[in-house]
Amino acid sequence: MTAHGKSTARPTTVTRGPVPGSRKIYVPAPDRPDIAVPFREVLLDPAAGEPAFRLYDTSGPYSDPAATVDLSLGLSPIRAGWIARREPAAGTPRPVRAVDNGNVAGEHLLPPCPAPQRVQAAPAGRPITQLEFARRGVITEEMIYVAHRENLGRAALAEDAEERRADGEDFGAEIPSFVTPEFVRSEVARGRAIIPANINHPELEPTIIGRNFLIKVNANIGNSAVTSGAAEEVEKLVWAIRWGADTVMDLSTGRNIHNIRGWILRNSPVPIGTVPIYQALEKVDGEPEKLSWEIFRDTLIEQAEQGVDYFTIHAGVRLGHVPLTARRVTGIVSRGGSIMARWCLAHHRESFLYERFADICDIMRACDVSFSLGDGLRPGSIADANDAAQFAELDTLGELTKIAWEKGCQVMIEGPGHVPMHKIKVNVEKQLAVCGEAPFYTLGPLVTDIAPGHDHITSAIGAAMIGWFGTAMLCYVTPKEHLGLPDRDDVKSGVIAYRIAAHAADLAKGHPAAKLRDDALSRARFEFRWEDQFNLGLDPETARAYHDETLPKEAHKLAHFCSMCGPKFCSMRITQDLRAEAERLAGLEAKSEEFRARGGALYVAAAAD
Amino acid sequence: MTAHGKSTARPTTVTRGPVPGSRKIYVPAPDRPDIAVPFREVLLDPAAGEPAFRLYDTSGPYSDPAATVDLSLGLSPIRAGWIARREPAAGTPRPVRAVDNGNVAGEHLLPPCPAPQRVQAAPAGRPITQLEFARRGVITEEMIYVAHRENLGRAALAEDAEERRADGEDFGAEIPSFVTPEFVRSEVARGRAIIPANINHPELEPTIIGRNFLIKVNANIGNSAVTSGAAEEVEKLVWAIRWGADTVMDLSTGRNIHNIRGWILRNSPVPIGTVPIYQALEKVDGEPEKLSWEIFRDTLIEQAEQGVDYFTIHAGVRLGHVPLTARRVTGIVSRGGSIMARWCLAHHRESFLYERFADICDIMRACDVSFSLGDGLRPGSIADANDAAQFAELDTLGELTKIAWEKGCQVMIEGPGHVPMHKIKVNVEKQLAVCGEAPFYTLGPLVTDIAPGHDHITSAIGAAMIGWFGTAMLCYVTPKEHLGLPDRDDVKSGVIAYRIAAHAADLAKGHPAAKLRDDALSRARFEFRWEDQFNLGLDPETARAYHDETLPKEAHKLAHFCSMCGPKFCSMRITQDLRAEAERLAGLEAKSEEFRARGGALYVAAAAD
Repeated sequence: MTAHGKSTARPTTVTRGPVPGSRKIYVPAPDRPDIAVPFREVLLDPAAGEPAFRLYDTSGPYSDPAATVDLSLGLSPIRAGWIARREPAAGTPRPVRAVDNGNVAGEHLLPPCPAPQRVQAAPAGRPITQLEFARRGVITEEMIYVAHRENLGRAALAEDAEERRADGEDFGAEIPSFVTPEFVRSEVARGRAIIPANINHPELEPTIIGRNFLIKVNANIGNSAVTSGAAEEVEKLVWAIRWGADTVMDLSTGRNIHNIRGWILRNSPVPIGTVPIYQALEKVDGEPEKLSWEIFRDTLIEQAEQGVDYFTIHAGVRLGHVPLTARRVTGIVSRGGSIMARWCLAHHRESFLYERFADICDIMRACDVSFSLGDGLRPGSIADANDAAQFAELDTLGELTKIAWEKGCQVMIEGPGHVPMHKIKVNVEKQLAVCGEAPFYTLGPLVTDIAPGHDHITSAIGAAMIGWFGTAMLCYVTPKEHLGLPDRDDVKSGVIAYRIAAHAADLAKGHPAAKLRDDALSRARFEFRWEDQFNLGLDPETARAYHDETLPKEAHKLAHFCSMCGPKFCSMRITQDLRAEAERLAGLEAKSEEFRARGGALYVAAAAD
Repeated sequence: MTAHGKSTARPTTVTRGPVPGSRKIYVPAPDRPDIAVPFREVLLDPAAGEPAFRLYDTSGPYSDPAATVDLSLGLSPIRAGWIARREPAAGTPRPVRAVDNGNVAGEHLLPPCPAPQRVQAAPAGRPITQLEFARRGVITEEMIYVAHRENLGRAALAEDAEERRADGEDFGAEIPSFVTPEFVRSEVARGRAIIPANINHPELEPTIIGRNFLIKVNANIGNSAVTSGAAEEVEKLVWAIRWGADTVMDLSTGRNIHNIRGWILRNSPVPIGTVPIYQALEKVDGEPEKLSWEIFRDTLIEQAEQGVDYFTIHAGVRLGHVPLTARRVTGIVSRGGSIMARWCLAHHRESFLYERFADICDIMRACDVSFSLGDGLRPGSIADANDAAQFAELDTLGELTKIAWEKGCQVMIEGPGHVPMHKIKVNVEKQLAVCGEAPFYTLGPLVTDIAPGHDHITSAIGAAMIGWFGTAMLCYVTPKEHLGLPDRDDVKSGVIAYRIAAHAADLAKGHPAAKLRDDALSRARFEFRWEDQFNLGLDPETARAYHDETLPKEAHKLAHFCSMCGPKFCSMRITQDLRAEAERLAGLEAKSEEFRARGGALYVAAAAD
């Protein structure tokens, strides 16, 4: 290594290998051996007498040591055959232009991903989107896949699933104890769930977003100021999905934006979302006034053909809404929202996104790009929460949802933002009512403004609550929010905080798959199976490192005590001893009944018999 | 520095100096210039046109550069005169015994804190506790102090305080828009709030715990395996209160426990809590069976005379409750609870804490030590939440509360633990009903078990919610929970996470002082006053460091953009420009009305007039 080594070293490959303590498995769907869904199994201490514990797995082939990964070839296009049978039209791909990559050339141009891709579009007069198939009663392979995935690969209803479901409070959601492909179809058909799955992204492992399914988490990534290679960009994706991101939004701007997106898409097992207005703005030198429908349309086609699975479209920011923000404490904080507000005011015209919404639908339908209707007027502070501007936009999003559905497009709705706890629930209620139960996709919300540097926590509080109330996907917030660009550690912190929020919400809703993991981990904790406790958790590496800081020796991972109390004081050990004692005293519980029947005075003697 | 420097260096002093960007002030109470309450003022950019922003301040004299701190002398006994006027009896101090410090001697014995202390007790036949004074209609200096502190030193009702209060949802709390000493007295008299303030802890800056006041946060500290000096132990306290701990529990065990406690008490401006059974257990070589009323009684007196402000007493763990835990996933996880359960089963007798409860009250009343009735049977996992054992103990705590109140003692009630979100609210409702609205003091709760290494987050979610529902004080959880002993960074992470939870809850309850800070910070954010944004936050150091990682130059702290978007894309800047434009267009809002009245089509032309 030279003296220059450190500053120029950038990753030339991506993170590989299993998450600690687990192995990758693929479980074929019932009656469809060709549809195999990946899961992660945590291998438990044989002494536990428990089978390996199966987990939902977003990490893709990267965590499978047996998988070959070559970023230049892209991932295996597992959906290619499914899509081909729908006989899509062979598209005439829009040629890539220099402006798509910010007019960079020569050594500054990141080469395009050489992985092969066939651009396809809707066949004339026939269905292509998951919504269209669902409405016609067709169960697609994607629907079978997500049903099996939601069931964690179980083939039948678990005995106690209904009991766990009944134990929750789901606020009117209709979570089934077992997810059938037909249930998935019916939820997609009525617009209550979406399967973001562009037909030009065959590498996708499909996932479903809707309030009657497991709550999903999105992580945002974006390009660095200096990009030295494709692996560096793909690694951000790989790292986010390793810790549990269900979808990833690529918010890159500036140079090489098109080619970076290509590398990400060809190597992404999760749905990729974008905000096309960002790239459109790049094409007009960052000056919102210069935006036009033609430039935006061209960008939509460019990205739809590349395979982006969902687009954030800020079509709800109407000219008439802008004055409603004038007295806000933090005005318009959405980038897309402020760009469109500026365009509207500069031209004194209604938003072209709103006026051309039907045309946007046609472009997105052709490749089955899902809508994520952007909340460009979301509150950026507690003071602005639930105000007239926010709800005026939501009403517009409700209108647009109906248009998109008529056009055959899948739709989810973006939500706030910054909202104090007592104003969160009404956001979900209004969104469900106004947008016909289309899935809600919220950013946080942050429940206070006063903790810059810790907003993964302020927002995880709001995210857990809004998820419980009915939000289908939570967009993560990292500790750097409001302050800077997240690094690798920040991305992990954000994803873990949001997996906590999503799981806590699933648990409170009574999702039948949720509590199993809490129980497995708690049994491991109580029985001092330290390795099992680490590995069943969301972050085995951190848990192990924290344990080892105080009790570093390997032998301590077998110890029946922990560093908090030490061997003499250990409450868990005392309880285990108590339990052993209780078991010796046969019929302890019966004695207890007796004890209480006698007025509580005689248990001692009775138990000592 | 020698080669040995690093491994043996331990702090020989404590953290001093102001929290960044703020200065200490002392504001005399109305009509009582002798009662001056400390606050922290954040100095804002003069360009902001806003006065310095005042914050509640728990950090004590340590953050005041003008204060002299000498750990050997202890803090100034600001309450000494108040207490003296109540004419307490001069106690005959219990002599310190070798067993109090774990029988260490010689160089291993940490010397006692030489700060002077006069041990006092209740005068015969006359009131001494805050509760007793309150019931007799007497407003103590402590009541005046906490009223002024809760008002953030305001002398009168702020104009818009009532509006902010009305905006919240307080679930039946009765938060006043302005706190009078008489309101404090009435809340203490009816047992709905406590002022933990041992008459032998004159150094205390009093604070009030009750659901009609600002929510408080407790941090736990404990001794290290190797103690090299008093400063090291006091520093844990100083560090926790610097970030916002309102009370501190000293959970030290092992050697030097008595002398460590002395150093902490003489140097603590916040109430100190302990769990006396821990020290009692030390005195019987860690074997619960050997515990006896006599040993416990001796320990209570020892600690009450030292000045401990509240004791956790696990008197609700009755013999008859123990069998209810037999089928739990995680049994008894409270140390105190498991110690007492073991004692009960070993002797086949009812708990001596329960049987001797009236005697315990007499000891605690004599020095005004408040009860923190321990929840020894709190759930240690999601599976065990809200079970029969937990609620049976709560019923017992309700009984004991009434006895303690009859005896003149102040009481708060400890609560769980691990509870999924949908089972949190009923905990507060039951506690309020069963314990006559005595303040609730909860540990978290953690809303899922699956995130070891991140339990400050899982528990901050539950803490924010339970605080909103009515909990008066939140006991923090650090990232090391379940895994190891917290270090300095963990303590800070835990305190910050809990200040977030407490503030979010105050905000949701409509506490009139809460939203002011969110608004001030958000204004700073919107106006790109970076330094103000950092300094108004809970953790200026981390916020500044995160900002500087991406944009390190000083000039960037004046920049009207941030690293997330860069100068061209900045949504906040765009909004500011929009607002400027809107202001130029005089009567923009009027025009907007006009626009809407005309059906939305003509705003453009009208605004362009």
